[in-house]
Amino acid sequence: MSGWLAIAGLGPGAEALVTPEVSAALAEATDVVGYIPYVARVAERPGLTLHASDNRVELDRARQALDLAARGRRVVVVSSGDPGVFAMAAAVFEAVESGESGWRDLDIRVLPGITAMLAAAARVGAPLGHDFCAINLSDNLKPWDIIEKRLRLAVEADFAMAFYNPRSKARPDGFARVLDVLRKRCEASRPIIFARAVSRSDEDVRVVPLAQARPEMADMSTVVIVGSSTTRIIERSGAPLVYTPRSVPA
Amino acid sequence: MSGWLAIAGLGPGAEALVTPEVSAALAEATDVVGYIPYVARVAERPGLTLHASDNRVELDRARQALDLAARGRRVVVVSSGDPGVFAMAAAVFEAVESGESGWRDLDIRVLPGITAMLAAAARVGAPLGHDFCAINLSDNLKPWDIIEKRLRLAVEADFAMAFYNPRSKARPDGFARVLDVLRKRCEASRPIIFARAVSRSDEDVRVVPLAQARPEMADMSTVVIVGSSTTRIIERSGAPLVYTPRSVPA
Repeated sequence: MSGWLAIAGLGPGAEALVTPEVSAALAEATDVVGYIPYVARVAERPGLTLHASDNRVELDRARQALDLAARGRRVVVVSSGDPGVFAMAAAVFEAVESGESGWRDLDIRVLPGITAMLAAAARVGAPLGHDFCAINLSDNLKPWDIIEKRLRLAVEADFAMAFYNPRSKARPDGFARVLDVLRKRCEASRPIIFARAVSRSDEDVRVVPLAQARPEMADMSTVVIVGSSTTRIIERSGAPLVYTPRSVPA
Repeated sequence: MSGWLAIAGLGPGAEALVTPEVSAALAEATDVVGYIPYVARVAERPGLTLHASDNRVELDRARQALDLAARGRRVVVVSSGDPGVFAMAAAVFEAVESGESGWRDLDIRVLPGITAMLAAAARVGAPLGHDFCAINLSDNLKPWDIIEKRLRLAVEADFAMAFYNPRSKARPDGFARVLDVLRKRCEASRPIIFARAVSRSDEDVRVVPLAQARPEMADMSTVVIVGSSTTRIIERSGAPLVYTPRSVPA
């Protein structure tokens, strides 16, 4: 039996946002490896072993998956969103680089998915319709100074911005500092989108001007999108539309 | 009959990368509107009218779609990739804002898709595994100075970068200038990924160090990914793996 490893993106939550490519890989798998709530999204069936693990053990989980594939199993590592955006793909390749030499020549594929910022953007309009950046606000794996420097430069470049992992119980204060940095550099009316659990039953999306943004509007299930200086709001009878025009005047 | 408008992302090309949500919208549509090669990806069937138009008429196309929806049709505007990333969603909202007041209260949804940079990243590993930005290199809709300023700031922020629309017959020289800007600011070994037509039959993906990158390696069907200073290459018997680690050392 020839093993393989697919690192698959399950999208933000709804089954209708899982690509057929990912569904096909799950149907062929003998083993699914991942963080508990993502593995819980995979239906049990005979012949499939589910390996769920807690958060913050990404490298151990990656090694377990590589070891299973090396022993001939057909393994899917599940991530939410897209596996290449602040998710499991980089962890697997870190494990490959530092691990057994045989792991390099395994059949490893990355199966893209709908990442949180694009699902969130779609819900409100097209706030990422022009140049933008994506920043992970967790300082577990990088110094805070780097986050602040990137924020300042992103505002100077006038990118729209998407923030992943804005706030957690272990890091309650960082996002307040992010809002302070933005308030010093952006107009008070700049649109901020707080998009929580997009496409899931507990979805909650709100759009507020920067002046009204509060740290407690975000948690670890929230992606935050900050408009650029050109981002516009279209008022209407329902929720407003937010979009960033394609053009920048000379 | 109650009309609606869905702005849908068809992904980079393969049917296996079209979400079930998009397939369902196409199955319910009475009209599909879009650029000729994207409309050509939709199967003809009785009751479905295909409206294919040439490039560079995005606003006219958006108005046509809004007008059809206002007249009670079920309309899908098709984009490649994700409609919110350098595609039709922003054009539709520009048309809504400047158009008939009744258009604001239409049932308009954006259906996300797999955007080119994420499909390209998945093919080579996880080069966008840490903070990154996406820049449209076309200067049709913005001054060249803005592009160069954003490039300089993105290098200073040490983002990985994805470039859309790097080069066309009408704009043969801009991408050469982009490479010049990068060569002045980045080490010669910085990995550059040229990913053309990912997931299509004519897919062509190559990874070269910046010193060997040439303008003619890109065309309008190419997305270019530039690693950050921490991006790594894992050599192996097949094509090398490229990934950006999750952590930045203090």
